[in-house]
Amino acid sequence: MEKIELHTKSRPSTVYCGGGALEKAAEYLDGKEVFIVTDTNVERLYAPLLREKFPAARMFAIPAGERHKTASTLFFVLDAMLEAGLHRSSFVAAVGGGVVGDLAGLAAALYMRGTRLVQIPTTLLAQVDSSVGGKTAVDRRGVKNAVGTFYQPERVFCDPLFLQTLPAREVKCGVGEIVKTGVLSEKVGDKIRGGADKLFDLGFLQGLAADCIRFKAGVVEQDETEKSGLRKCLNLGHTTGHALELLCGRRSHGEYVLIGMWLETFIAEGEGFCTHEYAEEVRALVRLAEKRIPAFPAAQKGLQYALLDKKNAERGSVSVIVSKARGEFAEAVLSAEKYARYLALLEGGAR
Amino acid sequence: MEKIELHTKSRPSTVYCGGGALEKAAEYLDGKEVFIVTDTNVERLYAPLLREKFPAARMFAIPAGERHKTASTLFFVLDAMLEAGLHRSSFVAAVGGGVVGDLAGLAAALYMRGTRLVQIPTTLLAQVDSSVGGKTAVDRRGVKNAVGTFYQPERVFCDPLFLQTLPAREVKCGVGEIVKTGVLSEKVGDKIRGGADKLFDLGFLQGLAADCIRFKAGVVEQDETEKSGLRKCLNLGHTTGHALELLCGRRSHGEYVLIGMWLETFIAEGEGFCTHEYAEEVRALVRLAEKRIPAFPAAQKGLQYALLDKKNAERGSVSVIVSKARGEFAEAVLSAEKYARYLALLEGGAR
Repeated sequence: MEKIELHTKSRPSTVYCGGGALEKAAEYLDGKEVFIVTDTNVERLYAPLLREKFPAARMFAIPAGERHKTASTLFFVLDAMLEAGLHRSSFVAAVGGGVVGDLAGLAAALYMRGTRLVQIPTTLLAQVDSSVGGKTAVDRRGVKNAVGTFYQPERVFCDPLFLQTLPAREVKCGVGEIVKTGVLSEKVGDKIRGGADKLFDLGFLQGLAADCIRFKAGVVEQDETEKSGLRKCLNLGHTTGHALELLCGRRSHGEYVLIGMWLETFIAEGEGFCTHEYAEEVRALVRLAEKRIPAFPAAQKGLQYALLDKKNAERGSVSVIVSKARGEFAEAVLSAEKYARYLALLEGGAR
Repeated sequence: MEKIELHTKSRPSTVYCGGGALEKAAEYLDGKEVFIVTDTNVERLYAPLLREKFPAARMFAIPAGERHKTASTLFFVLDAMLEAGLHRSSFVAAVGGGVVGDLAGLAAALYMRGTRLVQIPTTLLAQVDSSVGGKTAVDRRGVKNAVGTFYQPERVFCDPLFLQTLPAREVKCGVGEIVKTGVLSEKVGDKIRGGADKLFDLGFLQGLAADCIRFKAGVVEQDETEKSGLRKCLNLGHTTGHALELLCGRRSHGEYVLIGMWLETFIAEGEGFCTHEYAEEVRALVRLAEKRIPAFPAAQKGLQYALLDKKNAERGSVSVIVSKARGEFAEAVLSAEKYARYLALLEGGAR
């Protein structure tokens, strides 16, 4: 088990990653007043285990699924917390994937102006990415994460035991963010290239998780609230990924991020941010996880979704994070027309 | 005009207090994207002035009144902010009393995980107390401020011009918090005693406002999120004040705080926290503002409201902040029965 310390201005946060992390959580919360927020999927699979590890905790399950990441679910949780008579010194334990972590984190941030919070992520995506860094939110009126706050969990416990029951789609979702980190971090990139044949092997992925967390922790420490711009690098692949997700919505978030990164290498190259050789290197890394880039016959229509971002809409242009070289990135701002022409590259897919 | 700096871990905050503060706000926000949140009362009185000072700002009024400090009003504001296409770099300007400040502050804290925020308080209570220190919240299920966060405004502009239209009830509300500060701060207490005959004179009160803000700023700097307990001193008079407010609800918040402080001096004295002489001194200070302590024939019933506080309910006791001597305070925890016996002192009132 690895221990990663995250020092931010607001609050220190410690991440435990590896076998035994759940046991560590049980020790940490022993004797405390604990309110577990989870979802109906995790409850179905892990309620007995959670009751064994946290015998005195209350457990509250929200309906599973991204579409429940709303204000009404948030207040469903907050009302249950009021009902349970929690104090500011009580613990909220978010046990689940990204939706549970974001929503329970926000509930913890807001209840009586802030209770104590631990994250116990159960998906690969949440373990390598969303549970770390303190972002919390719900969606509103079609805008992702429109309402939220930064609230660091005091502890994050990433235990691989939860990954055993993860559907392949969810594994791929996490792989997308891991490959993204591999583009941003040379160390992670080299490990991925070195284990290219095991990229969907849970044992191998677990080994990468701590490196991904360590990289993200370093970014968050320098730019907790995304003010300096550094934290934006974590959005690599996401402009196009989100647009395609809204356009089609059949694949997992991580898969769209992979496809988004692939496309955005052409932007980086075409707009002079990187060499052809480096773009090829990034595309090769992406193709380790996404062997065949699917065809999106209506890809240019993705533009309208990229323009849903208010900042993009106002200036009529699209902002894309591009990788310039190993560990170097920049923000490219393209006219809407130009961005749509790049999107067209997706219309045929790539083998 | 006085300038008071508040240095907290989360963000520095600067308060301007005195004539010209609104002009200063106009300069500060000039050329910025500004979304004014106000209420229907303030809008009715000051919309032309606000349009003159902030010509490019959008203005959004919530219904006036404490009972609108709810999640649904909060999302009414957040949806209007989404509709207006605000960014994280836009400004929310809260122009109003305590409800507007708390609710707009929370909306600013949550919109896209935090926009910029300035407070322009228009009531005496908000100017001397609630606009300073970063507390934001809405009520939920009968629990005051159940859902909120700490979010420091980057600037607070307290302009006495707004006080001209303040109803007497609202003036008294502010006087309650000023007298409370007079018990906590020797400097403010001496000024009040020195100007006892002018305690409802707006000119005199304005002179006290900056001292009250300076005192509160000092407390908040040391205990921003009420963790160490120091910030609790600001709750002097509030345990009993809130209980009476819930029991009767006819007078203003500040008046109940005054009556609460009066009663709680008997607790401080009876439980051995202070001398009889000091308790008399505090009662004399309170009586400068509240000459006649009204009779509450059912005062003992206030106990049930004091026990609404979950922490009190659980241990079956009531926590009261008591003043031990000038500038010194403590937390007294009384059994429910004992607290009810003290409440009974209110059944006859006092002349």
